[in-house]
Amino acid sequence: MSPTISPLAPKSLPDMPEIAGVRLATAAAGIRYRDRTDVMLAVFDQGTSVAGVFTRSKCPSAPVEWCRARLKGARARALVVNSGNANAFTGKNGRDACAFTAKLAAAAVGCKVSEVFLASTGVIGEPLPAQMFDGVMTKLEAQATADGYVDAARAIMTTDTFPKLATARARLGGTDVIINGFAKGAGMIAPDMGTMLSFIFTDAPIAAPVLQALLRDGVTDTFNAVTVDGDTSTSDTLLAFATGKARAPRIGRAHDPRLVPFRKAFNAVLANLSEQIARDGEGARKLLEIIVEGAVSKPSARRIAMSIANSPLVKTAIAGEDANWGRVVMAVGKAGEPADRDRLSIWFGDIRVAHKGERDPGYDEAAVAAMMKKPEITLKVALGLGKGRDRVLTCDLTKDYVAINGDYRS
Amino acid sequence: MSPTISPLAPKSLPDMPEIAGVRLATAAAGIRYRDRTDVMLAVFDQGTSVAGVFTRSKCPSAPVEWCRARLKGARARALVVNSGNANAFTGKNGRDACAFTAKLAAAAVGCKVSEVFLASTGVIGEPLPAQMFDGVMTKLEAQATADGYVDAARAIMTTDTFPKLATARARLGGTDVIINGFAKGAGMIAPDMGTMLSFIFTDAPIAAPVLQALLRDGVTDTFNAVTVDGDTSTSDTLLAFATGKARAPRIGRAHDPRLVPFRKAFNAVLANLSEQIARDGEGARKLLEIIVEGAVSKPSARRIAMSIANSPLVKTAIAGEDANWGRVVMAVGKAGEPADRDRLSIWFGDIRVAHKGERDPGYDEAAVAAMMKKPEITLKVALGLGKGRDRVLTCDLTKDYVAINGDYRS
Repeated sequence: MSPTISPLAPKSLPDMPEIAGVRLATAAAGIRYRDRTDVMLAVFDQGTSVAGVFTRSKCPSAPVEWCRARLKGARARALVVNSGNANAFTGKNGRDACAFTAKLAAAAVGCKVSEVFLASTGVIGEPLPAQMFDGVMTKLEAQATADGYVDAARAIMTTDTFPKLATARARLGGTDVIINGFAKGAGMIAPDMGTMLSFIFTDAPIAAPVLQALLRDGVTDTFNAVTVDGDTSTSDTLLAFATGKARAPRIGRAHDPRLVPFRKAFNAVLANLSEQIARDGEGARKLLEIIVEGAVSKPSARRIAMSIANSPLVKTAIAGEDANWGRVVMAVGKAGEPADRDRLSIWFGDIRVAHKGERDPGYDEAAVAAMMKKPEITLKVALGLGKGRDRVLTCDLTKDYVAINGDYRS
Repeated sequence: MSPTISPLAPKSLPDMPEIAGVRLATAAAGIRYRDRTDVMLAVFDQGTSVAGVFTRSKCPSAPVEWCRARLKGARARALVVNSGNANAFTGKNGRDACAFTAKLAAAAVGCKVSEVFLASTGVIGEPLPAQMFDGVMTKLEAQATADGYVDAARAIMTTDTFPKLATARARLGGTDVIINGFAKGAGMIAPDMGTMLSFIFTDAPIAAPVLQALLRDGVTDTFNAVTVDGDTSTSDTLLAFATGKARAPRIGRAHDPRLVPFRKAFNAVLANLSEQIARDGEGARKLLEIIVEGAVSKPSARRIAMSIANSPLVKTAIAGEDANWGRVVMAVGKAGEPADRDRLSIWFGDIRVAHKGERDPGYDEAAVAAMMKKPEITLKVALGLGKGRDRVLTCDLTKDYVAINGDYRS
């Protein structure tokens, strides 16, 4: 945890309501850090359905492989997450550490090993000393309470400067249901979800395949539309748990019209958490929203927006409060997508700085300079080719990013 | 020009021999900088053939479009290069500036406008005040001498900390011929050639289509295998000029066996100049050679090597002298190419740190730490899948990169 909280952090933590069927607890197992919590256990009542999406890395961590295999069962009774060690690139040792941790949690909770889900975040390539969880799980189970969200969000932080929580309510077939979520992630964030862990909890009775569809559709414009440094982690994990304890109708089909307000609230939680990750980008001082419109398609707009969002030259210019739209042109040009220089227009905030392939005749450098001092900046590119539009979030690239990442492991 | 020369710069400048049929001169036209040269003119004798490769950006600069159109003529009499302004994203003004500059140069040299080649480097989106070249071209032509290479290389520098020159000799059909080259580029360097300008000169009688084939083949493992920041410029230009003044046989076919030693020397000049660009990466303190072997193909090896080379987390770890091979695994995993975690081995220098998907049992952190203090580091990844191998060059990512690029335009 960094001693300095990101200036882009939300002003306060949300009030997290309790969700029937979910209890949480945290402990300091001493995996890597001293004087802080580094493991959390979530315990779910029987009947909890689960869904998940994971990194597309070809070298995933052991817990990612563990969870992928367990999703077939569609039921969850426990979630164990540790920080400090990612249990990635740890070979057989890593698989054994997963099995051992799950066995401890299953014994403590009184469930099957296959109903335990795992996630780890931290350094890659170090064996995870899972024996340090021995004895811890039983205590965690005994201490777990329904109001443990903030502590849980803190326990899974690595280079995060603030815990990331969100909550929403929705009507489901005439009943109020709750959606809570928390996340961690600050570096190694990219489309396909960086070193990002996020967990969503609801009391809504949603069948596992429906929950899976909600997640799969929901990440496209939320977690997968956020990048800090273009680096994709081996460990990205987003899991959703639905206890079904609310007195709402059970939803078994993704196209059930009663799901509409729930989907909206669910996506709002995903959007809120993923935006907080951009706000806590390592060393970030500016939140940058990039909108690309007029592209030949939405995927084309996405690729151009990501090319801009991942350009070190754009990101350093934003850090320097310099409306260097020439670098935006460069990033559009290198994306490899259809673009016509002479139709291109670029805005910083609401100020159009370039129009039809040239500096805007009305371009007032002083007005732009003043706007660039704001902590939240919107950069819009209009290509003038079609109707494709997309939006991604990122942050600036500062010397602090280099400092954090040049001195992380030692 | 940065006041501090990169610690990775060559110890001395090469002695540049004269090439019959090439004369060079420089001047301070005052385009953007004060108290330094910012324009160079190269004058070629009649009969000089020309070839070129350019950025693949969809938003190329006006001079890039100018040169592409002029290459059809296959003949060159003059090359004008300015620094301080890239004449990119300047619309009709940019095209007019090219035409005006070429007209001035053609009048001074006594050639057709279509025999004048142009390149510009510097800030994007500012109109190029080409009228400042008026009067300058005639003086340059009068002053041009055959020994002007070092001054020419200095005149085209932007954030470069040292001029980049290389020379080689080759036998061509029983005669010695000379190949000289110089280049600029330090940021916005990526495959497809970043803001990189490079010019090659030879007295060998090489027909334009053969010169074009030499360039096209030669850049693959030289300029296109170098990345500083993954950002591709709107202005990349590599031009080669062959005066044909050497008493060597004229080469009209790319497969002529007499071309073999020339091709080798030509590629050596390209390799030398492109390595110097990595050595002058903005803020660079370490030269990083990345070798990927055992991939399913050479293009697959290239994509994995580039994923590593462009990873901010790998680059900041190198800056921090941290052999963080976990981040290398991450970069392999995100490349999207076939990779099997459990067959992966990774070396820093000659020390194998990871083997078959786990930390190497003999991994000695102290030995690796000592090796990481060196200014030149080789990082090798063996995938164990096939025979695909490739090599790219890059540099570390330091706070100075952010400082240079957060305060470049103002």
